[in-house]
Amino acid sequence: MTSVDKRAVVDLLGVLAYAELTAFDRLAEDARLAPTLAGRAALAQMAAAEIGHHRRLTARLTELGADPTTAMTPFVAALDAFHESTRPRTWLEGLVKAYVGDGLAADFYREIATFLPDPDRALILDVLADTGHADFAVREVRAAIAAHRTVAGRLALWGRRLVGEAITQSQAVIAERDDLARLILAGTGDLAGLGRLIDRITAAHTERMKTLGLNP
Amino acid sequence: MTSVDKRAVVDLLGVLAYAELTAFDRLAEDARLAPTLAGRAALAQMAAAEIGHHRRLTARLTELGADPTTAMTPFVAALDAFHESTRPRTWLEGLVKAYVGDGLAADFYREIATFLPDPDRALILDVLADTGHADFAVREVRAAIAAHRTVAGRLALWGRRLVGEAITQSQAVIAERDDLARLILAGTGDLAGLGRLIDRITAAHTERMKTLGLNP
Repeated sequence: MTSVDKRAVVDLLGVLAYAELTAFDRLAEDARLAPTLAGRAALAQMAAAEIGHHRRLTARLTELGADPTTAMTPFVAALDAFHESTRPRTWLEGLVKAYVGDGLAADFYREIATFLPDPDRALILDVLADTGHADFAVREVRAAIAAHRTVAGRLALWGRRLVGEAITQSQAVIAERDDLARLILAGTGDLAGLGRLIDRITAAHTERMKTLGLNP
Repeated sequence: MTSVDKRAVVDLLGVLAYAELTAFDRLAEDARLAPTLAGRAALAQMAAAEIGHHRRLTARLTELGADPTTAMTPFVAALDAFHESTRPRTWLEGLVKAYVGDGLAADFYREIATFLPDPDRALILDVLADTGHADFAVREVRAAIAAHRTVAGRLALWGRRLVGEAITQSQAVIAERDDLARLILAGTGDLAGLGRLIDRITAAHTERMKTLGLNP
């Protein structure tokens, strides 16, 4: 564990710090689609939690002697491209993206975090813990499907599109970051281990789609 | 002090709660205009502080037996109209709006809060306390003016427009909320007292414009 390359840790903290900053942005933007003032405030509060995470990650980067901006910069293009290509047009699409998309990303980052020593492992697992978002999204989406059955088909397509875009962008990131790629390969052990990691992430994704009442 | 009408207190907490929700929105939107990732994170953190204030105000409304949404609703149209008519087109316009516009509003709410008994007076003064926004805005705007002298003229015009729109919208709100209007008149004592309140707010505004390096 102690042999983990510091550059890989900085990469992981950097991509997460930028991911939290974009999560803030996106939740803040989606808040404005909320049908009620209470829903708008709920999403704004979740956005606030994400920026708190961002702050903890950048503080750790500084502690490691890394400049936060430099650490985040390599991931700006890929994460922005993901969000640009999956901009929700409705309140419900925003919630599905938050639950399904963020859930998938969190699973992936959590898998990688287990390859790291503490305190970075604990910090990452902590900032990835759900901030009440999941329950809120599930409740709202299920209520909407119960009210209008046809909603489910469209949202299921949306969920599948999110996964496709997420895979495309994460492959692009890993292909460009050698240290991160080496960390993942070393951590999973071999290609079979990597396959099992992908299986676990896929299974959790299927579970989340079902929880929402959507066909995976 | 104990004779303050509860409806006026609910009105004041309601307008402030909605003001904080829109402040969150606006800071989150302006964050995206930031020229650097650090600036973007700084504004996002300020937005997060505002939503924390919003939460404290709605908690107090609930404690008073008032429904937060009902308490905020009468002020949605006027505050949205203000923000719609003063949407910043640049990072610097956003900062001037945050410093000059929020400063003016905070001064006004603070004056009214002094007419209330505790704990509402203390709560309002506390949520109106600066969240580090002022220093940040002053630093960025002064640096921009130092780099490009011509910026000052355009931003000064912008500052004056903000005040005009703020006065128009607050007059519209007070004209419609009898309890709030009565609270202000009772608190200031008479028209001369109201005049002095307006003088104090105007003087503080002039001071803020000068601090930014702008002609008031």
